[in-house]
Amino acid sequence: MTTPKREGAGEPLAILAAGGNVPYQVASAAEAAGRKVLVIGIEGEADGRLRDFRYEPLKWGQLGRVESMISAHGARDVVLIGSISKRPDFSTIGIDLRTLRLLPRILKSMVGGDDQVLGNIIGYLEERGFRVIGAHEVVPELVAEAGQLTGPSVAKALRDDARVAMDAARGIGERDIGQAAVAVNGLVVAVEAAEGTDAMLERVGELHARGRVKWSGRAGVLAKCSKPQQDLRVDMPTIGPQTVAAVVKAGLAGIVVEAGRVMIAERAETLHAAEETGTIILAVAGGEGQRPP
Amino acid sequence: MTTPKREGAGEPLAILAAGGNVPYQVASAAEAAGRKVLVIGIEGEADGRLRDFRYEPLKWGQLGRVESMISAHGARDVVLIGSISKRPDFSTIGIDLRTLRLLPRILKSMVGGDDQVLGNIIGYLEERGFRVIGAHEVVPELVAEAGQLTGPSVAKALRDDARVAMDAARGIGERDIGQAAVAVNGLVVAVEAAEGTDAMLERVGELHARGRVKWSGRAGVLAKCSKPQQDLRVDMPTIGPQTVAAVVKAGLAGIVVEAGRVMIAERAETLHAAEETGTIILAVAGGEGQRPP
Repeated sequence: MTTPKREGAGEPLAILAAGGNVPYQVASAAEAAGRKVLVIGIEGEADGRLRDFRYEPLKWGQLGRVESMISAHGARDVVLIGSISKRPDFSTIGIDLRTLRLLPRILKSMVGGDDQVLGNIIGYLEERGFRVIGAHEVVPELVAEAGQLTGPSVAKALRDDARVAMDAARGIGERDIGQAAVAVNGLVVAVEAAEGTDAMLERVGELHARGRVKWSGRAGVLAKCSKPQQDLRVDMPTIGPQTVAAVVKAGLAGIVVEAGRVMIAERAETLHAAEETGTIILAVAGGEGQRPP
Repeated sequence: MTTPKREGAGEPLAILAAGGNVPYQVASAAEAAGRKVLVIGIEGEADGRLRDFRYEPLKWGQLGRVESMISAHGARDVVLIGSISKRPDFSTIGIDLRTLRLLPRILKSMVGGDDQVLGNIIGYLEERGFRVIGAHEVVPELVAEAGQLTGPSVAKALRDDARVAMDAARGIGERDIGQAAVAVNGLVVAVEAAEGTDAMLERVGELHARGRVKWSGRAGVLAKCSKPQQDLRVDMPTIGPQTVAAVVKAGLAGIVVEAGRVMIAERAETLHAAEETGTIILAVAGGEGQRPP
């Protein structure tokens, strides 16, 4: 039982799940596709609903146990998915011996973004013969497809803003600085670095409120793209219902994402929130062939 | 009485002065160099001390009078200098006929940054036979010269941060987005767009305080550079004592600027503030020959 789009349908799948709603979505879709699912839920992060599946709780200090859990399930494929709201504090949690060996790699990864904590576990798992796959390989509809997904018809000015904002976001992405930018009336008004997309959108709202950047009604877009060096299997830029809410609050008209390389978490809710608020969501192909997805 | 570095020494000079302390500095230095100085002070912006010089007040609505004022002074050279804190509100001020003809150009310029308001008057003045020169051509010491200007010896990590931050600042400068960035421990943590340098530095302080970006003691640098397309005669990026204070408050170790293309306003006070607080100020040449000053 295989389909061209869903990887390894029918085979057992292990999902190492952190926070947010996406892990539940992935587990449900995998099960619906006929896969035998094991969820290994990070304590303090994983959604309680995940216990509907075959479930193993895991403390950060027990990361070394992941290997045996996956093996016991008979899985070769592993998905690492979910957000990390609280950085593990390795000074207060008990750490088992196997995890201790993993620690240098984890600590190194924690210097980077939150998602890197998961990202750097890949090498460890691959060395042990597992195959780390992206959640979007199990659930293709997680990823934005090219085209206009929501909202009213797009005026030329907004299409220009989309191009300008996407160009800025790609520019900083190539430098590994961030993956989002905002353009209004042809000008880039904010660029994301360590503060994250939500804080950047809040800043845009303040700049607008203080008259530092002027526009009337709703105008401009948030662009979000992946970095060329990003491992999309475990670290895909994501928009969700809260992104739509933040964009509306900032007075922006829409969101433009890179097709095939940006995840829409809680797709139904996100698209519904966008339609309800008249917010445009556009997905564009990766840079006129320069950066194929 | 001419010197090789000071342009047109001895000739009359007109200074169209907006806010801040720099116009007074320029007027004093020009007078000390033997030039006959006329200051045309923008009302509501220009420093009261400028009335020590031959002085003509000017309302925004009277910009069309600038031409006759400069001619009456017998000057060919004009310096446009100073910051604009309040955008002129053309709906409430009386506008004379000559200014009315200038208005389309001024309004266009106001879509950009504040400095552009002055910048776009250049064409108008040049068409009338005046020569618009940079304040730094009258006062060469306004501009940072290459080398380390203040602070303790620079560790390798900080030199790396300077390179990383400067590369990011140049990258967004080339895209006409902003002219400043902050790097700490090899990572770019903030990039400036419409919010301005002070707001960006405040953000860095908050990211640090909230533990979103971690470092101990003081680390990292603010990089400030000019944009390739910037008209340095009227729109030169500037650091001053408040930049040093903001850098210290953000927990950063220093500032790196592009030699020859960034102004140090109130040089003595700025360098003193940096020495007092142990803040490094470095000026580096423009990108290994790619971008000669």
